Amino acid sequence: MPETKASSPLRADARRNRDALLAAARDVFASEGLDAPLDAIAKEAGVGRATLYRRFPTRDTLIAAIFEDDFDALEAAASGAEDPSRALFAILDTAFEMQRHNLGFTELFTRRPPAEDVLLNIGQRFNEVVDPALAAAQDAGHVRPDITTAEIGTVMLMMGVATANMRLHEDGEARRQRTINLLLDALDPARAPRELDA
Amino acid sequence: MPETKASSPLRADARRNRDALLAAARDVFASEGLDAPLDAIAKEAGVGRATLYRRFPTRDTLIAAIFEDDFDALEAAASGAEDPSRALFAILDTAFEMQRHNLGFTELFTRRPPAEDVLLNIGQRFNEVVDPALAAAQDAGHVRPDITTAEIGTVMLMMGVATANMRLHEDGEARRQRTINLLLDALDPARAPRELDA
Repeated sequence: MPETKASSPLRADARRNRDALLAAARDVFASEGLDAPLDAIAKEAGVGRATLYRRFPTRDTLIAAIFEDDFDALEAAASGAEDPSRALFAILDTAFEMQRHNLGFTELFTRRPPAEDVLLNIGQRFNEVVDPALAAAQDAGHVRPDITTAEIGTVMLMMGVATANMRLHEDGEARRQRTINLLLDALDPARAPRELDA
Repeated sequence: MPETKASSPLRADARRNRDALLAAARDVFASEGLDAPLDAIAKEAGVGRATLYRRFPTRDTLIAAIFEDDFDALEAAASGAEDPSRALFAILDTAFEMQRHNLGFTELFTRRPPAEDVLLNIGQRFNEVVDPALAAAQDAGHVRPDITTAEIGTVMLMMGVATANMRLHEDGEARRQRTINLLLDALDPARAPRELDA
């Protein structure tokens, strides 16, 4: 993949193009779905087709780059938490906030999975970010001990679709907050599952 | 809308065509999304295009008919519950089970809403089915008193996307059950929200 930030620092204009393409891709995927024409993304970014295809030869490399940036943001949120046992909540807060402007990805995990290597990368990076944060939260008793990293992913996916839905409602923001609280309640050990009550 | 079951009983072959078209529409919408070509639905149903367009002149009338059938099933589940205070759980069980084979509708509530009258009809019918069941469950103390009918809709939507995701995983069925339990835990008054604990 040409998208390897580590290998060579991008020149300023290349970085601008990259950022513009990713911002445009988020917009276009959100409004038209993941099968939207790549030309629409180049147009919205204000760059030529050739630039888009040179930087991101396939749709999946573009998707992978968006996820790279998102995981960087989640990782920064985790590191920024004052108390490591609260890092998971910082990750979830950040993810839920990003979902407000990042609506095109539900398809990716339902009927339109990306190439297997892209999906594996996303899963691996997700685990790297969430595993230690979840373990710390569970050790501190902030999260039910039976919750898995995959289930944190499911919670994010579910909140993603709820967020996309709530944009269509006038009282959407209040409903979005309520739904976040409902999902956090489900993770709360003070409201332990039936099995643990017995 | 030509789709008015009440006005005239369909002849047997017309009923067969209708059922075949709805079954095909569910399949095609699930695999290709809600913008799938209607011709593909006619083909899969084994009927001519003319038959499809006569019965369902627009994509939205087809979608509305699918929801009619689904709401009939939810209503039957609610009526079939021995204890009316458990009708809500019968509705949820049935909805979650239907979602296993009915994967195309997340889009409808996110980035591709149907015509306003269709959406209003769906919402109205949803309220008619869920309102009394939710009230009975709350009166009996089976569901948190602060939960709204709209939030039951959100729970169904979230479970819909989780179900679509879990089809892509080998251990999907076990994870689907766990996710259902998580969501039901969130509704459980024994695990009341923070505000009620205080």
